[in-house]
Amino acid sequence: MEPPNWWTGFKNQDLELLVYGKDIGKAEVRVNYPGVELVKSHKADSPNYLFLDLNISEEAKPGNFTISFKMPEGASESYEYELKKREKPADEYVGFNSSDAIYLITPDRFANGDPSNDIDKSLNETTIDQEDDYARHGGDIRGIIEHLDYIDEIGFTAIWPSPLLINDMKSGSYHGYAMTDFYKVDPRFGSLSEYRELANSVRERGMKLIMDQVENHCGIEHWWMDDLPFNDWINYQELYENGEQVVYSNHRRTTNQDHYAAKVDKKQMSDGWFVDSMPDLNQRNPFMANYLIQNSIWWIETLGLGGIRQDTYPYPDKDFMSDWAGAIMTEYPNFNIVGEEWSNNPLLIRYWQEGVENGYDSNLPSTMDFAMQATIVKGLKNEETWGTGLVEIYDGLANDFSYENPESILVFPDNHDMSRIFTQLGEDLTKTKMDIGFMLAMPRIPQIYYGTEILMNDTANPGDHGLIRTNFPGGWEADEVNAFKGQGLSADQKDMQDFLKKILNYRKNSLAIHEGKTTHFAPQDKTYLLSRNSEDETVVVILNKNEEPYKLSLDRFEELGLKGKKLQNVISGEIISWEQTLVLPEYGIYFLTTKIKN
Amino acid sequence: MEPPNWWTGFKNQDLELLVYGKDIGKAEVRVNYPGVELVKSHKADSPNYLFLDLNISEEAKPGNFTISFKMPEGASESYEYELKKREKPADEYVGFNSSDAIYLITPDRFANGDPSNDIDKSLNETTIDQEDDYARHGGDIRGIIEHLDYIDEIGFTAIWPSPLLINDMKSGSYHGYAMTDFYKVDPRFGSLSEYRELANSVRERGMKLIMDQVENHCGIEHWWMDDLPFNDWINYQELYENGEQVVYSNHRRTTNQDHYAAKVDKKQMSDGWFVDSMPDLNQRNPFMANYLIQNSIWWIETLGLGGIRQDTYPYPDKDFMSDWAGAIMTEYPNFNIVGEEWSNNPLLIRYWQEGVENGYDSNLPSTMDFAMQATIVKGLKNEETWGTGLVEIYDGLANDFSYENPESILVFPDNHDMSRIFTQLGEDLTKTKMDIGFMLAMPRIPQIYYGTEILMNDTANPGDHGLIRTNFPGGWEADEVNAFKGQGLSADQKDMQDFLKKILNYRKNSLAIHEGKTTHFAPQDKTYLLSRNSEDETVVVILNKNEEPYKLSLDRFEELGLKGKKLQNVISGEIISWEQTLVLPEYGIYFLTTKIKN
Repeated sequence: MEPPNWWTGFKNQDLELLVYGKDIGKAEVRVNYPGVELVKSHKADSPNYLFLDLNISEEAKPGNFTISFKMPEGASESYEYELKKREKPADEYVGFNSSDAIYLITPDRFANGDPSNDIDKSLNETTIDQEDDYARHGGDIRGIIEHLDYIDEIGFTAIWPSPLLINDMKSGSYHGYAMTDFYKVDPRFGSLSEYRELANSVRERGMKLIMDQVENHCGIEHWWMDDLPFNDWINYQELYENGEQVVYSNHRRTTNQDHYAAKVDKKQMSDGWFVDSMPDLNQRNPFMANYLIQNSIWWIETLGLGGIRQDTYPYPDKDFMSDWAGAIMTEYPNFNIVGEEWSNNPLLIRYWQEGVENGYDSNLPSTMDFAMQATIVKGLKNEETWGTGLVEIYDGLANDFSYENPESILVFPDNHDMSRIFTQLGEDLTKTKMDIGFMLAMPRIPQIYYGTEILMNDTANPGDHGLIRTNFPGGWEADEVNAFKGQGLSADQKDMQDFLKKILNYRKNSLAIHEGKTTHFAPQDKTYLLSRNSEDETVVVILNKNEEPYKLSLDRFEELGLKGKKLQNVISGEIISWEQTLVLPEYGIYFLTTKIKN
Repeated sequence: MEPPNWWTGFKNQDLELLVYGKDIGKAEVRVNYPGVELVKSHKADSPNYLFLDLNISEEAKPGNFTISFKMPEGASESYEYELKKREKPADEYVGFNSSDAIYLITPDRFANGDPSNDIDKSLNETTIDQEDDYARHGGDIRGIIEHLDYIDEIGFTAIWPSPLLINDMKSGSYHGYAMTDFYKVDPRFGSLSEYRELANSVRERGMKLIMDQVENHCGIEHWWMDDLPFNDWINYQELYENGEQVVYSNHRRTTNQDHYAAKVDKKQMSDGWFVDSMPDLNQRNPFMANYLIQNSIWWIETLGLGGIRQDTYPYPDKDFMSDWAGAIMTEYPNFNIVGEEWSNNPLLIRYWQEGVENGYDSNLPSTMDFAMQATIVKGLKNEETWGTGLVEIYDGLANDFSYENPESILVFPDNHDMSRIFTQLGEDLTKTKMDIGFMLAMPRIPQIYYGTEILMNDTANPGDHGLIRTNFPGGWEADEVNAFKGQGLSADQKDMQDFLKKILNYRKNSLAIHEGKTTHFAPQDKTYLLSRNSEDETVVVILNKNEEPYKLSLDRFEELGLKGKKLQNVISGEIISWEQTLVLPEYGIYFLTTKIKN
C-alpha cells in the first residue's frame, strides 16, 4: 500500500492510496477512524489494484487506523495505516535560495562509508568494479554523512545527491535515475533510516538537503512493470506489452513552447521513451498523477527536505508538472524546486520559471542556467575582440532582464552530465577560478559538482559520463590520495580548494551577494567588472585578461560610490584603496569586498 | 520656418514651429486666423531661434495665414504659413504588413534615371565616380520611377529606398544616413515633386512606399550645426562646440534592457556619437523631440507613405522613441514602422515590439529578425547532425512563441549593411533559393535587397559596404548587362529572377502565407517541412538536403489533412498527389500549394 503512511494537517485533505494485491480489485473496503472518510474506491484495469480516495479532515488525529478489505468470497484482510503528526510547520521547510551554495554529489562515486552494503545479492546487479566507470563503485549515504564536515568547511550550505532510491536494474544502476520503487532507498546506498540520518545531520548544521526526483520515467525493473494497474499507466504501453519496439522521444524540447509545433512531434517528445530500459510514465492518468505528487510530498515530509531537483523537466506532461509543482508549493510555501531544462536558449529558461506571462503557469520557482554556463566558458576561452571574450559574459548576464527572478535560477560550472569545467577550460587553473568565482558573485544559486574543488577532470575522454563521475579520492579505504584531508593533492588542487573555501565562506554571510543590487560595466581593455551591493557591503569582481600588469582607471566606476574606501581581496587578504587606479598584476579574477576581515 | 506647412484635422492639435532668423528670438509674434491660436512663443539659447506653440483647433479651415514678427526696434516681418487639407483619411495610410514583400533599394546604386542631376556644384561633394564604391554613382528617384514596372513584375508590393533626403556631406554622402536638412530632398536624387511622383506611382500600382528615417543623428554639415538653438540640442554639445573630441557610442545596445547596466554605459551608448561626422541628436530636449515627430508626420502626409523604416533604433533616447512611434501610430492607426535593432538575440527583437509586457511601451509595430537571418544561413551551411543543420532553422522559428506578433516582424536574406546572401551562402544558387524561398513562406514581412534576384554578390571582399551596394546592371546607360530587360544575364541569374518572380507573384494572393496557421515538423532525414494554411489553401515548403533522390514518407504529416489532395509545385508547375510518399528528386526547396493554377 502506497504511500506507506501519511500525515494529518495538510492543506490538501485528499489522499489516494494505491493498494496492490492478488484480486484486490474485487474487495469491499472499509475505514473507520474519526476524521477519515473513504470517499471512493476505484478499480483499475488490472484486478490486482485498488485506488482508495480518502479524505483526511482537520478533525483527524495522528494515529493508526485499520483499512479492511472484504473479498466477495468472504475472505477478509485488514491493514494498519499510520497517520503521523507533522514534525514541523509547513513554512519551516525552507528551500535552497541565493544565499546557498549547493554541492552536487554522485553518491556511488563520492565515498564508500559502509563497505558492507556494496553488494546485495538479492538485486539484479551484483557486481562492483572500480575499473569500470559504468559499474557500481560502492559509494553510499554513510560516505556522505561521514564527510559532511568537509563539505561544510569548504563552505557549501546545501547538498544535492543524485537519486538514492532503488535502481534494481541489471546494469548501469549506479547513476540512480531508473527507479524501480519510488518509496525505497537503494540498499547499496543505505537504508531509509540512514537517509533520514543524513537529512537530520545536514539540517543540524543549518544546511539543506535537496532530493533528486524523477517524474518522467521509472526503471524497466520497476515492480509494477509486470502488472500495470491501468492500460495507460505508461506511454506506448500497448507496444511494450506486445513486446514491440516502443517509440523513443524525439527530444525536440521546443515543442513545449512552439506555437507551430506539429502535434505528432509534441506527442513523440513528451510520450516517447528515453531508452528501452526506462518506461515513460503517463502523468495524464489521474491516478499516476496523484501517485507521483504524493510520493514527492511523502519524501519532503519524511526527510524534512530543503528542496527538490526535478530531472528532465520538459519531458513529462507539462500540465501535470504545473500541478505537481503547484501542489508542493501550496503545501510548502517557502520550499524550492529546480527543474532541469538543458537548453542554452534564455527564452526556454525564462519560460519555465513561475511568474512569466506566457500562457503557462509553471509554479516552478527555479530553473537551470545552462545558457550562462556555456557563455562564461566561451567568454573566457574566446579572444578579446569587440564582440567576443568577456563581452559575451556581459551580454549573457544582461539577458537577466528577461527573467522573472534571476536570483532563483541555478548556475553551475558543470554537472554530472557534462564535461568537467577544468576540462572545458583546457585545464587552465586561472580560467577555472575566473569561471567559478564569477558565478559565485552572480545573482544566482550556485551549484558545484563534487571534485571541482580538486580540479577533477575528464580530459582523457571529454564528456564521458563514467569518467566525469570518477571516484572522489579519499572516499575509498585503499585511496592513496585523500582530498578530504588534503593528503597527496597537487599544489594546484590545494590552491583550488583554498580558493573555493575562501569565496564560499565569504559568500555565506554576504547579503550583497545573496540579495544585493547588481551592476556591471561593459568590458573595456580586457577587463570586466561586476559589482554586488547591499546597504553596507559592496563586492567587486573583476575578470582581467591582461597578461601584463594593468592599471585600471577607476573613474568610470564612480557610481559604485567606492572612492576613498578600502577593499579587501577575499583570496589574498590584501587590502587596497579605491582611488584613481587599481593595478591588476596578473591575468585572473579579483574578488574584492568592502567588508574587511582582520 | 519648419515644418514648412501643416495640415488641419490631426488628432494632436499642437504644432510647434521652429523659426530661424537673425535675432528672431527678440521678436514679438502674432497670429490671426480663425481656429489657430499662438499658445506660447519660446526663446532658445541662441538669439536666432524662436519656437512657436500653435493650437490648430477643429475649427481651423485649410488656408494660408500670416505670422507676423515685430522686432523691439520696430522692424517687422511677416510669413505666410499654409494649412493644407489632408488628402485622405488617416486610416487609409495602410502600412506594409505580412501580405507585402519589400524591395530595398540603395538609390544611388539602382538606376540613374536623370543624368542631369548627378552633380550639383553648390553642394560639398561634387564628384561622381563609378570606380569608387564610396563615391556617388548617380542613381536617383527618376531611376526608381522608371523601373517600377520591373519591381512590380518581379512581384514586390512595397519599396524601401534608403534615405533620399539631402546629405550635403564632404564625402561618402551616397548612403543617405547623414542628413543635413530633414525637410529637403537631395538634389542629386531629385526634387520633392519627384519624390511625390514616386510615391504616387507606387500607390497607383497598389504598392507601398516606405521612407527610411533617422532620429538618432544628422550630418555634421546640417544647416543648424553652426548655430545650435539650445545648449543641449545635440549630445556632448559642449565638447563639440569647444572643438574637443566628442565621445563615441560604446554600441553596448543591451544597456537598453539590462537591469544591471551601469549608468555610465547607458549614457555612452545612447548619447555617444557614431562618428565625428554624425552629431548625435538630444531627443530629451523637448523642442528637438517635437521637431523630429513633426518631421516624420510631415513626410507621411506629404508623400502618403505606406510605412517608415527607422534607422539605429536602440540608439536614440528610448522614451523618446516610444513617444515618436506612439505619436505616429495614434495619428495613423493602420500605419507601420519597423525599427532596426541589429541583434541576433530574440530577447531584444522581442523587447522592442509593442505589446510585450516588459515595462517599456515601445509603440513599435515591427522589428527586424536578424536572428532568423543568421540562423537560416547557419542551418543551410551546417552539416546535418542531431543539433545542427535544418534543425537550427526549426529551433529558430520555434522562438516565435516569444514574440507578440511574429508575422509583423521583418525578415530578410540580407540588407544594405551586410554581406549579400549569395556570398554568405558560398555562391550556392540552390541554398540561396532555399534561404529566400523559406523566408517567403514564413509568418513574417519579407524584405529583399535590390539585386538579390540576379545573385549580386560581394564575394571579392565580403562585407565591404561599397561593394555590397554595387550598381544594378542596366541602371546606367553604358551598362552592357541590363537586368531589367534580362539582357546579358547568366543562366543562374535568370533562374534566380524566375524563381523569385514565381514565388513572389504566388505570395501576393496567398492568404495562407499572409495570415494562415503555421505548422512545422522537426527535421528528419535531412528534410524539414513548413506548412502554412488558411481556409482553402495549404502551402507546403520542404527543405531537402538529400543529394540523392529521397522518398519522403507522408504519414507523419497526416495532421495537415492533405491526404489524397493534389498540390502544385509553384516553381515547376508540376502537379503531384499527396499520398503515401513524395519523391524529392534533388537537394533544394520544394514550394507546393493546393491552389492549382492552370
